[in-house]
Amino acid sequence: MPDRILSAISQQTIDHRGPDFAKVGLRALDGLKSIFKTQEHVFIYPASGTGAWEAALVNTLSPGDRVLMFETGHFATLWKKLAEKLGLWAEFIEGDWRGGADPDQIEAYLTEDKAHEIKAVCVVHNETSTGSVSPIAAVRQAIDNANHPALFMVDTISGLASLDYQHDEWGVDVTVSGSQKGLMLPPGLSFNAASAKAMAANKSAKLQRSYWDWAEMVGPNKTGYFPYTPGTNLLYGLNEAIDMLHEEGLENVFSRHARHGSAARAAVRHWGLEVLCFAQGQESGVLTAVRLPEGHSADAFRASTLEHYDISLGNGLSKVADKVFRIGHLGDFNDLMLVGTLAGVEMGLKKANVPHAEGGVQAAMRLLA
Amino acid sequence: MPDRILSAISQQTIDHRGPDFAKVGLRALDGLKSIFKTQEHVFIYPASGTGAWEAALVNTLSPGDRVLMFETGHFATLWKKLAEKLGLWAEFIEGDWRGGADPDQIEAYLTEDKAHEIKAVCVVHNETSTGSVSPIAAVRQAIDNANHPALFMVDTISGLASLDYQHDEWGVDVTVSGSQKGLMLPPGLSFNAASAKAMAANKSAKLQRSYWDWAEMVGPNKTGYFPYTPGTNLLYGLNEAIDMLHEEGLENVFSRHARHGSAARAAVRHWGLEVLCFAQGQESGVLTAVRLPEGHSADAFRASTLEHYDISLGNGLSKVADKVFRIGHLGDFNDLMLVGTLAGVEMGLKKANVPHAEGGVQAAMRLLA
Amino acid sequence: MPDRILSAISQQTIDHRGPDFAKVGLRALDGLKSIFKTQEHVFIYPASGTGAWEAALVNTLSPGDRVLMFETGHFATLWKKLAEKLGLWAEFIEGDWRGGADPDQIEAYLTEDKAHEIKAVCVVHNETSTGSVSPIAAVRQAIDNANHPALFMVDTISGLASLDYQHDEWGVDVTVSGSQKGLMLPPGLSFNAASAKAMAANKSAKLQRSYWDWAEMVGPNKTGYFPYTPGTNLLYGLNEAIDMLHEEGLENVFSRHARHGSAARAAVRHWGLEVLCFAQGQESGVLTAVRLPEGHSADAFRASTLEHYDISLGNGLSKVADKVFRIGHLGDFNDLMLVGTLAGVEMGLKKANVPHAEGGVQAAMRLLA
Amino acid sequence: MPDRILSAISQQTIDHRGPDFAKVGLRALDGLKSIFKTQEHVFIYPASGTGAWEAALVNTLSPGDRVLMFETGHFATLWKKLAEKLGLWAEFIEGDWRGGADPDQIEAYLTEDKAHEIKAVCVVHNETSTGSVSPIAAVRQAIDNANHPALFMVDTISGLASLDYQHDEWGVDVTVSGSQKGLMLPPGLSFNAASAKAMAANKSAKLQRSYWDWAEMVGPNKTGYFPYTPGTNLLYGLNEAIDMLHEEGLENVFSRHARHGSAARAAVRHWGLEVLCFAQGQESGVLTAVRLPEGHSADAFRASTLEHYDISLGNGLSKVADKVFRIGHLGDFNDLMLVGTLAGVEMGLKKANVPHAEGGVQAAMRLLA
Repeated sequence: MPDRILSAISQQTIDHRGPDFAKVGLRALDGLKSIFKTQEHVFIYPASGTGAWEAALVNTLSPGDRVLMFETGHFATLWKKLAEKLGLWAEFIEGDWRGGADPDQIEAYLTEDKAHEIKAVCVVHNETSTGSVSPIAAVRQAIDNANHPALFMVDTISGLASLDYQHDEWGVDVTVSGSQKGLMLPPGLSFNAASAKAMAANKSAKLQRSYWDWAEMVGPNKTGYFPYTPGTNLLYGLNEAIDMLHEEGLENVFSRHARHGSAARAAVRHWGLEVLCFAQGQESGVLTAVRLPEGHSADAFRASTLEHYDISLGNGLSKVADKVFRIGHLGDFNDLMLVGTLAGVEMGLKKANVPHAEGGVQAAMRLLA
Repeated sequence: MPDRILSAISQQTIDHRGPDFAKVGLRALDGLKSIFKTQEHVFIYPASGTGAWEAALVNTLSPGDRVLMFETGHFATLWKKLAEKLGLWAEFIEGDWRGGADPDQIEAYLTEDKAHEIKAVCVVHNETSTGSVSPIAAVRQAIDNANHPALFMVDTISGLASLDYQHDEWGVDVTVSGSQKGLMLPPGLSFNAASAKAMAANKSAKLQRSYWDWAEMVGPNKTGYFPYTPGTNLLYGLNEAIDMLHEEGLENVFSRHARHGSAARAAVRHWGLEVLCFAQGQESGVLTAVRLPEGHSADAFRASTLEHYDISLGNGLSKVADKVFRIGHLGDFNDLMLVGTLAGVEMGLKKANVPHAEGGVQAAMRLLA
Repeated sequence: MPDRILSAISQQTIDHRGPDFAKVGLRALDGLKSIFKTQEHVFIYPASGTGAWEAALVNTLSPGDRVLMFETGHFATLWKKLAEKLGLWAEFIEGDWRGGADPDQIEAYLTEDKAHEIKAVCVVHNETSTGSVSPIAAVRQAIDNANHPALFMVDTISGLASLDYQHDEWGVDVTVSGSQKGLMLPPGLSFNAASAKAMAANKSAKLQRSYWDWAEMVGPNKTGYFPYTPGTNLLYGLNEAIDMLHEEGLENVFSRHARHGSAARAAVRHWGLEVLCFAQGQESGVLTAVRLPEGHSADAFRASTLEHYDISLGNGLSKVADKVFRIGHLGDFNDLMLVGTLAGVEMGLKKANVPHAEGGVQAAMRLLA
Repeated sequence: MPDRILSAISQQTIDHRGPDFAKVGLRALDGLKSIFKTQEHVFIYPASGTGAWEAALVNTLSPGDRVLMFETGHFATLWKKLAEKLGLWAEFIEGDWRGGADPDQIEAYLTEDKAHEIKAVCVVHNETSTGSVSPIAAVRQAIDNANHPALFMVDTISGLASLDYQHDEWGVDVTVSGSQKGLMLPPGLSFNAASAKAMAANKSAKLQRSYWDWAEMVGPNKTGYFPYTPGTNLLYGLNEAIDMLHEEGLENVFSRHARHGSAARAAVRHWGLEVLCFAQGQESGVLTAVRLPEGHSADAFRASTLEHYDISLGNGLSKVADKVFRIGHLGDFNDLMLVGTLAGVEMGLKKANVPHAEGGVQAAMRLLA
């Protein structure tokens, strides 16, 4: 986390019902719209991202509703389990964890649903477990092609403020996100951006809700307040983060991440290893998941690299446990930090005797220069 | 907030799945037990207190269950509304907002419930809107006297770590609390301490839940982890707060607040004003609510005092709106800060032409010295 | 120290020869002029105030030069000793430590010096050991009345940014100050504001100097740099402090301190104790020194008050050791903090059995309200 | 600077005459001994390193004394100028800025001085302008070989806590250092470690001094206090830094820097550029100065690299201005930060069209792995 944000969150907590709070609240509520690229309401929860997943569903759906989800990886799977726990009928289009959601499959699935029983389509934008990005605008088009009225919900917890995201332009009904990735904050805030259609659905949705209920938020939010105690200090940090993103320029932030993704993949390919994401053009600028050759434990490699080079690589989750490691390049990250990170991986491969061609770092530098 | 805590929460966020996190998590989970005075599990949510209210109910109850609540003030009323929103049948023993919950009325009510349809009794320990404290041990006794099997739930969001609280000794089944009062943290963490009986109820409870579900927490908590992203930076602060409380000694913390409550009331009575809490022995050491004479607007007084003496007094909520103001004396507060606060009130009374006898500050000092 | 300043000084140190530093340096050098009320150069040393005392002398004087000083208290005495250590011939107009410097005595002394052997007149503006303020403009007038060419040097280490100070208007040649009082910073920066006459004297001054040499500073300062490593992080804090002072308004800062001084003295007089400063109109708004009755140890009283009320009172220094204690009311201090402080003193007097009339705090409040 | 240190220095300033300060002061004074590897007194000044240079000289020498210095680079030259400004007769053994001080030349020079007119030999340990290290133990031997009684003074402002340094074992009389390099603090503290022989010289030394005077320090230091206001907040940071160094282990810190120096030189040599330090075994582990080929401006290269890769390289000073750039690898620096830094240089060379062989980063990694 940048020092500016650490400094912002360590200011004294002010009274969330006092007159000074309104400025903090309004600035956050308005500022988030520019980040989600929406004119609609963005709800802020004092909760981590899992809470905002739940909020998206309970605010718009009723017990037993069918929802269509796409198995992009571990987090899509967790969201599906959560939906089932809430009493929804969640259906999965299975995936191989090597790319984003497939609009064609979604279109076909929805076309079959003549009765329009499916009430929502849920897709993960940036799948943190695999480093694949789903084509959100194309999924929107797929729903439209099928003439299907389902709500469209997108989780961009790890994509927002790193990858281009356009809530309004892409016709998303509910966007779910959180504070601890592209917004460079500690975990503890999460968000729902909601379209007019989602707000309408909220009126008839029967799933039980209180903490997550949008309806209670709208009124107090108008003047910058919240119906219950908000995460005041993280809101300070959020406002600082939004300022930082606009100072750099959102488009510059996006292209920085795209360059870093390309450079990381150049290194991986030079090493002779495989990037987990197979789908051309769907590789993430936020993280790169890498498969180790058969017979090599990714977790042993990660532990060795942490010990020798003080670098913490992400682990493979569930289906790819011990098979992949993940290189993060999100948030407040510059070219030299990326090279340092890739150097840690390359030295770690050597130390752990993982077969690879030396020179990946140099390959990444060639791309960055 | 104390500097030690501000400093703790502004450390870099570590990976909540990495090896270093376990120490942070275990320290927090264990440390909280000493604060709740329990051997049972304390659940930690990345959420504010309202979330923990909801968690207590959805983890233990089923749709349509009857719950008995006591109208101690605004926050008891909010908890009741929340219960109703969740589909519970919440019944209120009405109160006059001038004291804590009445064990006799509770005993009578439960005795009538021969069929044991009431599944839970919910009481607010320290009612922040009135400055009254409910006699928790006596309510336990009342439930026992009625031979009633209802779960006993207590909200001590604003009492914990300021007033004596004994989850195990007092036979509470679910205790609800939060980070931003006696624990001296920003808002954003909240807690459920759960008895074995509550854990058993969890198994058959039918209210829909996912984020709040205890069952998912128990396993990961054993090794210091959480099923979803925790509020890492607030956990740093929580661990620091627990250390600070034990350095001072919990009993010393409690008697400090008790002295401050007595001194504040001495000032109020000297001024010739009325303490809202009427019940002898139930006045809070955390805050003192004061009634202004008829014809004087408490909110106008508060605004004037803020402007002239830079002191933010709590407002009267709902039934006592504009009729009372509240003097806080919680958290990291010493004798001289209390005198300064009381001086702000006394000078504010003068500035706002509220009839009062000068000398309340001196009366408080006499008690403190 | 205010949180804004703590936050400013804990930013990363930047390269003091790099391009970004110039902005920091120029902002500090310019900003200080508004605080000293001067158009002349203000030199900034990475050193505490004692260094700036030395700098004032070594930059303008030669070995054996006579300097006239006025014994306002302990710090005037230390400055004299320092002058002697440097090989100057320092002469004292003795004082009783109960008021500021006396312009009449200074005028008489200078008038006697027909040969103009005295090269500098040195006066302490706010004498921290006694709480007395010297009338600087009147001393300037006294020097002029005597038609004497001596340089006029003033130490306002503890007065600057709390009491009105006008380097140019009052015709001061060298003003000495430091960071840790009215500027609300940690110690570690100190200052010399120098008139054109002082700059001219610098050219022929023969006292040995290097670190303190103004001549080396002027050039680099023009572009915001320093001839050797500056106190970068304290400069961050200095810039923040200057902003804060202008946000409140310097004149508001001065009147706040004046009110606090009056209120503190009202309390002291009500207690029946004596304010050390006897000279009407010369009592300090920065601190109030109080004499204890004969037979009472001020240090024992201070120790007891620290133990029981957690308040650190200043001690009596040298001539008034163990006879007085000092109440500080400088920097970022509001009415209620003053009342709290006075309450600590009053409760401390009671605890230590020092005879006094109860009610001093109330007397102070009457004045503040 | 590490977060632990930023956090330490942003604590509230305590009274430097109060009872709590003694612990801070004693811990710093004792702790520094372990860093200088001395049993003697280490003096702490609230001043930057230039002040401690001056302190070493004024505390031990008299006007007109001859001192022998060795021209290792820019900082040795500045120290010489400072000595001359103080009225000393400073003589230089000229050097080519491509190595440390030469013990043989020093021995020869001293042997010539039959009358023992030379009162001090002054050597820079780690010359920051060139990246060369002087062999301090060998210089001591040279002085002994010449049977010369001169005091031996060493500047290790940028070497201490990064390179091995042994004040006692190496027979140094005065060691000069500062806070902002190996101690990882902001600038603002500087140090003199003084031998018994230096303390004896202090008694008869005639150079004018007050702020820097050791004699005033010794007494108050015994109980942890200082004769004038110390740099309290930086002392907090100093204590934290000393803890951090001992946690890592001083010898580990030294070998980390040595490895980083080797790796940086491997990169430079691979690029086909020249390391400024020519003397085998005297290359610094703290920084590496690199010569650009004729016809290439080092400053233009540095500006371009700052703009494109956000990396601030040190500039060439005086004799090597615009001819060299300097790569820092001091303080809290790990392998991957070094690789990142070298990558910035290599990409910068490409961007600025400086002829070089690609692959320096990879060469450094080979050495680090």
